[in-house]
Amino acid sequence: MCDACVIQSVKERMLSRRSLFKAAAGLAAAGALSAVVAPKPAFAATGANTDMTHTLSPEFPTYGGAPGIAFNKQFDFKANGYNLNELVIGEHSGTHIDAPLHFSENGLSVDAIPVSDLIVPLCVIDVREKAAANADYQVTPDDLKAWTDANGAFPDKACVAMLSGWGDKVATPQFRNADDKGGQHYPGFHIEATKMLLETTNAACIAVDTLSLDHGASADFATHYAWLPAGRYGIECIANLDKVPVTGATLIVGAPKFGGGTGGPARVFAM
Amino acid sequence: MCDACVIQSVKERMLSRRSLFKAAAGLAAAGALSAVVAPKPAFAATGANTDMTHTLSPEFPTYGGAPGIAFNKQFDFKANGYNLNELVIGEHSGTHIDAPLHFSENGLSVDAIPVSDLIVPLCVIDVREKAAANADYQVTPDDLKAWTDANGAFPDKACVAMLSGWGDKVATPQFRNADDKGGQHYPGFHIEATKMLLETTNAACIAVDTLSLDHGASADFATHYAWLPAGRYGIECIANLDKVPVTGATLIVGAPKFGGGTGGPARVFAM
Repeated sequence: MCDACVIQSVKERMLSRRSLFKAAAGLAAAGALSAVVAPKPAFAATGANTDMTHTLSPEFPTYGGAPGIAFNKQFDFKANGYNLNELVIGEHSGTHIDAPLHFSENGLSVDAIPVSDLIVPLCVIDVREKAAANADYQVTPDDLKAWTDANGAFPDKACVAMLSGWGDKVATPQFRNADDKGGQHYPGFHIEATKMLLETTNAACIAVDTLSLDHGASADFATHYAWLPAGRYGIECIANLDKVPVTGATLIVGAPKFGGGTGGPARVFAM
Repeated sequence: MCDACVIQSVKERMLSRRSLFKAAAGLAAAGALSAVVAPKPAFAATGANTDMTHTLSPEFPTYGGAPGIAFNKQFDFKANGYNLNELVIGEHSGTHIDAPLHFSENGLSVDAIPVSDLIVPLCVIDVREKAAANADYQVTPDDLKAWTDANGAFPDKACVAMLSGWGDKVATPQFRNADDKGGQHYPGFHIEATKMLLETTNAACIAVDTLSLDHGASADFATHYAWLPAGRYGIECIANLDKVPVTGATLIVGAPKFGGGTGGPARVFAM
């Protein structure tokens, strides 16, 4: 960078820090008006942003067990002057979206989810202790009520996310946690909690740090069949829920815009 | 929602609006300190967010001409109770990322691009008039200088994006604009402008509303070979550049986190 550019750049950064400081001061003053209201972060490109996405590789665990992605190399740098792959992807692999169409005949496809449902307040339901004691644990209405008792009503168009602690197991067989008969064992949303969210909130999505919105042992996919046909969507295998506050973060859901798709690998950030 | 919930929700919304108002007032006051500094938007989930992503379908134009995505239906709602596809995707299809690895032997793969390079200030270089007069137009150092003369130095880790107007042609043969011999004709970044950005800025990425960082008629991919091996990345086929301000927006680049990939379809928003 030229000297003049550096000076200009430093000046701008100083000014924008002042702006942020003033904004933060304003927010802090407003926040003091009520302890119930979580302080809103001053969103900024320079703020702390958390990657909520696992890396998708052929080794990444999937619900069905088959690899979720394959890379077919078509062009190679040494031979062709550049690298390029064809990708074969299971639509529901890695940190990914369940669009309403996944469990309905004519629901919204992944490209049709409104942008206003993709940039939403994140609410984290921490059930790590219960899940550690019981791999088949399901989030209950009482777990949701404990969150609202502590944090107030779920905000408009929230993403309500289950933090079960399963994200730590992602590189191990304990993530799918299959028994001798192939049955999987990990936590998910209980149908009664799902109904409570459907009936009392306009939450845009539910998210889990496991392979399924339903618990792994589910025989009927009750939560999938209640939630998705209602026009709401899900995120499975979300990462780093333990790195964000239980309230106050905004989730940016980079759902893939595959025309007519039932879901797909997404890039998800929290701000 | 129960009555008490509604009241709580309204209260919270009123308070958070006050917070935003105070923040906005603070930002406006700080902005008044210097006309050079673009006013920073008060980012919020409730703010105006623009989708910068085209829908990827088999009909979407690609550089090579082959379909960029195929949907192989594996499970069908009527027959199986749910819908699920296998996807076959050309890595460089739709609104997508060019990772450094695309044009280098050992450059960063798409999953390794730092998050701090994916949430960045957006700077729009409007060359629509020149591109309308000349489909082979290339963004020049003078175009970049015109932007900095009007808006100050490029901000830290910027995305410098070419708005050629080509986004309007995306559903027509004029997007690839191939001649009788198959040569393509659309605008891109001139190597001298690329060098200027490399030498005088730390821009994280360049973006184009066309199929290639280089102009379509390029015989040597000079911009690809200069920009990507330097550890910077590109976005091709970005949408809606005409819907955002030339400065002041933040770009959220939902690059797919495919382990070892050379790029891939991305979901991109501007805030």
